[in-house]
Amino acid sequence: MTKQPHTSAGGALSLERLVFFSDAVFAIAITLLVLEIEVPHLPRVQDSAAFVEALRDLTPSFFAFGLSFLVIGRFWMTHHGLMDHVTTYDPRLMWPNMLYLMAIAFMPFSTALLGSNLGQFGPALFYNLTLLVTALLGRLLVRKIEALDPTSETLGREANGANSVMLGAGLSTLLTFVAPAFSQIGMATIPLWIRLLQRGVRK
Amino acid sequence: MTKQPHTSAGGALSLERLVFFSDAVFAIAITLLVLEIEVPHLPRVQDSAAFVEALRDLTPSFFAFGLSFLVIGRFWMTHHGLMDHVTTYDPRLMWPNMLYLMAIAFMPFSTALLGSNLGQFGPALFYNLTLLVTALLGRLLVRKIEALDPTSETLGREANGANSVMLGAGLSTLLTFVAPAFSQIGMATIPLWIRLLQRGVRK
Amino acid sequence: MTKQPHTSAGGALSLERLVFFSDAVFAIAITLLVLEIEVPHLPRVQDSAAFVEALRDLTPSFFAFGLSFLVIGRFWMTHHGLMDHVTTYDPRLMWPNMLYLMAIAFMPFSTALLGSNLGQFGPALFYNLTLLVTALLGRLLVRKIEALDPTSETLGREANGANSVMLGAGLSTLLTFVAPAFSQIGMATIPLWIRLLQRGVRK
Amino acid sequence: MTKQPHTSAGGALSLERLVFFSDAVFAIAITLLVLEIEVPHLPRVQDSAAFVEALRDLTPSFFAFGLSFLVIGRFWMTHHGLMDHVTTYDPRLMWPNMLYLMAIAFMPFSTALLGSNLGQFGPALFYNLTLLVTALLGRLLVRKIEALDPTSETLGREANGANSVMLGAGLSTLLTFVAPAFSQIGMATIPLWIRLLQRGVRK
Repeated sequence: MTKQPHTSAGGALSLERLVFFSDAVFAIAITLLVLEIEVPHLPRVQDSAAFVEALRDLTPSFFAFGLSFLVIGRFWMTHHGLMDHVTTYDPRLMWPNMLYLMAIAFMPFSTALLGSNLGQFGPALFYNLTLLVTALLGRLLVRKIEALDPTSETLGREANGANSVMLGAGLSTLLTFVAPAFSQIGMATIPLWIRLLQRGVRK
Repeated sequence: MTKQPHTSAGGALSLERLVFFSDAVFAIAITLLVLEIEVPHLPRVQDSAAFVEALRDLTPSFFAFGLSFLVIGRFWMTHHGLMDHVTTYDPRLMWPNMLYLMAIAFMPFSTALLGSNLGQFGPALFYNLTLLVTALLGRLLVRKIEALDPTSETLGREANGANSVMLGAGLSTLLTFVAPAFSQIGMATIPLWIRLLQRGVRK
Repeated sequence: MTKQPHTSAGGALSLERLVFFSDAVFAIAITLLVLEIEVPHLPRVQDSAAFVEALRDLTPSFFAFGLSFLVIGRFWMTHHGLMDHVTTYDPRLMWPNMLYLMAIAFMPFSTALLGSNLGQFGPALFYNLTLLVTALLGRLLVRKIEALDPTSETLGREANGANSVMLGAGLSTLLTFVAPAFSQIGMATIPLWIRLLQRGVRK
Repeated sequence: MTKQPHTSAGGALSLERLVFFSDAVFAIAITLLVLEIEVPHLPRVQDSAAFVEALRDLTPSFFAFGLSFLVIGRFWMTHHGLMDHVTTYDPRLMWPNMLYLMAIAFMPFSTALLGSNLGQFGPALFYNLTLLVTALLGRLLVRKIEALDPTSETLGREANGANSVMLGAGLSTLLTFVAPAFSQIGMATIPLWIRLLQRGVRK
């Protein structure tokens, strides 16, 4: 660390704004997911079969919505836990955080691509790679925070969280080559990785 | 409660962020409702009849917008009142809260489905079931908060609020089988349930 | 005022959340306006004439965007000034505030309707009536706050602000019957009304 | 400065709300960018060639998304640094700030226009002019803050930031006349200008 942090008068407010801005981007991205589900217009005549069929056509979109909601929720929790450890505002956090947010803000597109073409190799790979890149950028943010404040000893848990998401997203990416339709279950292994890595830390 | 809460240094900020994130999702979901109303393009020539007809075609969408705005507003107030009783941040609130938010974020879709196909059995049932599931998830959140902090005695009011929304949504769901076009008036009984349940508590 | 206000432990946080939620709805509504401007797809070949024509077709949408941005900004400032005078949270403010927000959240639709059909009587009347209803709901909110806290003497300025918006919107509505294409200039008289009414107060 | 600032009881809260509202508009605008990327619907049959081609068609939209994300991020940082220096709320900041936000909120449209017609002169000029106007409005906001509080000596850095964005946007605008497809690299010179101008200040 050769450069001095550019501390400003409004340091506390600055950190709060950074956190707030990030939270807002997470909240907007997670709520925009629903706009990508196309609303069916049914025939005017009462026709239950048409409605059931329309719902069946939408099942992939519902699945993609639910999955991405949980995934963004998980990413947000990692960010939440991480920022708890940042006590002083440092402008050098800005860009790593912004790149992470860019990946989050891109999720509604990947989600819609997955939901519109569920079970296909290309869109599944694209979706899982989006997750992997997001997880990597999250891991970089953890590293940046550790570098700026090396005394922070409690960051182990957050680093494990970020590593677990990376492992889950990596597994999903690998699974795409075997079974694209089921590759997203890689993300379901995240709680397992968290527990495993956490045990390693305690030893 | 066998597990210890993972209290962190930034406990107060953590709770604030959780509340903030929830508020943002509510605010975005409630404001996105309007995007589901299709904007009519009228003929260039002045033609009042065409405009009046276009407005008449939009009446179901206007109705669905207004109804869901009030419903999400009601859900937000329940959440608002509930979170007032949470004084310390507990990470175990995260996922129950996230599932509740997922149901809220899904509302714009159900609303658009209802508005595009008003009076039909299928979409009305789908909409009312969305409300019922959201109300149930809200009730579960109340229960979770009660479990984490059993000394909280003022939660009775909030539990009643959540129960009332559940009763209203349940009544709407039942009414769908009788008269889908008017089933949403079940939600209008919520203030009645609140008053009734509140009276029971005072006795 | 026969009912007691339901003061809660988290009174200060409650008020903050109410203000925050309102701000978020204003911010989202004002930023969603841009989504209603349709993006033209030009021919691949370089064709400046096609681009200029596309821009000319969009002029009404640009106008509606700018107008509604300023109008929602004006409404937000009124709300901002108003809430400065609310010092204790009162749940009875909830619904009047929610109805006001509903009118604000509806603005993107009215704006898109105006932008897609500029100069037509019907859409202009619809837009101006939306403004008038919003202004009326804002005035009701002022009255509600005055009723809940009658000692508040500084509310005169805010009441004048709300009255001025109402006068401007009313004038626009009347002008629609004379010249729909130019009726929105009624809103431009708001600063004039503010000055006039303010002078009356000082006397 | 002949007029007295209209200081109100809730001065600190007022400033906080202004900052919050601005942050929210930035966060929403930056997250809405993704909605302008059209989601391709691929043929049901596994067809990797179709997917690769669809991605290639989307490349301009991806580029425009990434570029505008970074640009809005940059604008937000300028605003962030600027508002750190505002310690007391002054209503006269309202409208200059609102105009700046209007330009920010317009960015998703310019971005979509650029992404849908990349390499064409007209849309590139339109996009770069949007940046230039936004930068100018940002510079005006800096000037307004300086005028309201002339003792603020640390504003030099923020003025330089705003000037650098203006120089970058101006260069991009000029480059449009030479090579529209590559004109956006003008924005990439911003860090250079910041460094140059900063050196000038220190001398």
